[in-house]
Amino acid sequence: MALYVHKYGGTSVGTVERIKHVADNVIQARQRGEDVVVVVSAMSGETNRLVALAHEAQERPNIREMDVLLSTGEQVTIALLSMALQQKGCEARSYTGAQVRILTDRAHTKARIEDIDTERMRADLAQGRVVVVAGFQGVTADGDITTLGRGGSDTTAVALAAALKADECLIYTDVDGVYTTDPRIEPKARRLERITFEEMLEMASQGSKVLQIRSVEFAGKYNVPLRVLSSFKEGSGTLISYEEASGVEKPLISGIAFNRDEAKLTILGVPDRPGIAYKILGPIAQANIEVDMIVQNVGEDGSTDFTFTVHRNEYKRALEILQNICADLGAREAAGDTAIVKVSLVGVGMRSHAGIAAQMFEALAGEGINIQMISTSEIKISVVLNEKYLELAVRSLHEAFHLDQAAAAA
Amino acid sequence: MALYVHKYGGTSVGTVERIKHVADNVIQARQRGEDVVVVVSAMSGETNRLVALAHEAQERPNIREMDVLLSTGEQVTIALLSMALQQKGCEARSYTGAQVRILTDRAHTKARIEDIDTERMRADLAQGRVVVVAGFQGVTADGDITTLGRGGSDTTAVALAAALKADECLIYTDVDGVYTTDPRIEPKARRLERITFEEMLEMASQGSKVLQIRSVEFAGKYNVPLRVLSSFKEGSGTLISYEEASGVEKPLISGIAFNRDEAKLTILGVPDRPGIAYKILGPIAQANIEVDMIVQNVGEDGSTDFTFTVHRNEYKRALEILQNICADLGAREAAGDTAIVKVSLVGVGMRSHAGIAAQMFEALAGEGINIQMISTSEIKISVVLNEKYLELAVRSLHEAFHLDQAAAAA
Repeated sequence: MALYVHKYGGTSVGTVERIKHVADNVIQARQRGEDVVVVVSAMSGETNRLVALAHEAQERPNIREMDVLLSTGEQVTIALLSMALQQKGCEARSYTGAQVRILTDRAHTKARIEDIDTERMRADLAQGRVVVVAGFQGVTADGDITTLGRGGSDTTAVALAAALKADECLIYTDVDGVYTTDPRIEPKARRLERITFEEMLEMASQGSKVLQIRSVEFAGKYNVPLRVLSSFKEGSGTLISYEEASGVEKPLISGIAFNRDEAKLTILGVPDRPGIAYKILGPIAQANIEVDMIVQNVGEDGSTDFTFTVHRNEYKRALEILQNICADLGAREAAGDTAIVKVSLVGVGMRSHAGIAAQMFEALAGEGINIQMISTSEIKISVVLNEKYLELAVRSLHEAFHLDQAAAAA
Repeated sequence: MALYVHKYGGTSVGTVERIKHVADNVIQARQRGEDVVVVVSAMSGETNRLVALAHEAQERPNIREMDVLLSTGEQVTIALLSMALQQKGCEARSYTGAQVRILTDRAHTKARIEDIDTERMRADLAQGRVVVVAGFQGVTADGDITTLGRGGSDTTAVALAAALKADECLIYTDVDGVYTTDPRIEPKARRLERITFEEMLEMASQGSKVLQIRSVEFAGKYNVPLRVLSSFKEGSGTLISYEEASGVEKPLISGIAFNRDEAKLTILGVPDRPGIAYKILGPIAQANIEVDMIVQNVGEDGSTDFTFTVHRNEYKRALEILQNICADLGAREAAGDTAIVKVSLVGVGMRSHAGIAAQMFEALAGEGINIQMISTSEIKISVVLNEKYLELAVRSLHEAFHLDQAAAAA
């Protein structure tokens, strides 16, 4: 019998009415003859309510107790969904993370799953029951409640699908799939039938927030086919797997991602000596600031400009650090800019196809858009632009690579 | 080191502000050098909110899932109280019923405690931590979450106190102790310094709803001294134990209880034959209606009147049953009255002292109050009156037995 893990996020279970709608969806799957394990998040708003209570009780809430508190959110949902299923005549049984025994390490609020006991779930499935599991939570070997951190319910779903060797892990959400780019920026954006894990990781990390990066990594690692689809409307969504689209359908470019959360920092006129990159980035790393793109230009006078990007929230701290080390380095000055955006072309097709970068730069030049930084990988080309060009850049690239057409060809 | 179990009900933990106040109270106990285990209920209103959600999801909510749902209420409170304690510099750790391992039977929504594992609690106490335990909940041998039913948090507190051999179990509530009678009816009602388990059972079952009967029975069975006191104001409350007040302080009567929830049923002109009581009460019992007082008067003509009381909610059903069996019994008619009240004098002192009943009837007669039924036990005398006399009866008895004076003597 085919086994599917369904995951429904907070919006999909935000009211009892919506939970009943989820129950209908699960029952349809049962009627198709599928075994179903359902993973649910807390009802939307509930986690925020609990976090607010915690901060009222303790300035910096203890993380062990935070997990005890937050895990109640999903526990409420599993009970209500099981009731809604039973109301409609579908046998169902709920399990908290501790009850399944989703064993994690002790890293409260960001625990990692170490093992999953599938025995009780398999017994229930064999009895014809739907199994409803609380997402986002687990338990340590000592019996302490843990949570998995942001997007943890997706991770729970993928981990259960891997442990149960499910056919697919269906992530029901408020969008109906992964798009070539954000439809709010390019109305011609098209839903992708399929995308590879690698591409999805690039799309997600670049700002297409459909799925949490960690769950995509997890799915890739355990080769669990993921499908993103809408809880609110019919459709086959987007399948994320190792298989590329094949034949004439095979696109060079799958999509365009962008990220508005970064800021650019430059240290100008650094004497070009070995070890200079370390001297600059060492203090940044020590301050626990994550660096994304790094570009170094060799100047003509033996000095160089060194540029990198960080999250916008870290911009001020990073700039202060650079200003402090300027003199030591013999650099001219440190400067920066928060009014930037990163735009990336993503596609496994570009691996075997030269000229994509040139075509990208040509499209941007054609619109008079100045490129501030460039960074490339096997399946991605990213450029940093002035943020005022975001929409124009995305739309022109979408058109240049014919992403609005199903069987895109460059 | 002295060990106390504290229990705080829903009103006492109704807001984070109140939870902080509970934390202060616990910290004061720590500063007196006491070890403390705290049992808490769900924040007031929370259980009702969850029950409403359940009924939205399922007409008659599945009881296993109901327990999964309701147990989240206390889980929220234990996390918040632990945080509030830590915020004030007091080490604390929370446990759900399942985490302590409060083992119960499988009777969901009204489970009974079978065993309590004290190991983790003792280890925490030894480390100088306050242990915060979720009331009202436990876990079956299979790992299913159970709840203990009405007043379950009191039961948890008493059971923990018994298992840990605590010195006292302190029940913090919104009243500051057990009173000679309801102060809303008799403003001269006086707080009792102490009362025995037996008396408390009579007071509770008669309508003084300070403590749940089950937890008092439990405390009596395991000889756990209970103390009822206010979360909101200072005071030593009322100690409930096996010891009677002694010496000149020893009162004949501890208090006056009353119950407005009963209704009276009478079957008139029943031929007085053996087995008649069974023929009347058999069908009532079969209908699962609980009977409280029973009185049978032998008439002069070989027929008898048979009267008993039931909960008012059962009155209509009980009357229908009686009307149906009237003919079979050869009885004249079945009648009833819901406008009654039961008033009881309670006191272990009356065991060894005759004349209390006479004194009671004299006081009532003095006010022209007609007595409809009388029932007595070793430590209690109950009368049924027209409900319009409730206040008058309570006040005149309170005065007749000098209950407003600390060292009451008849």
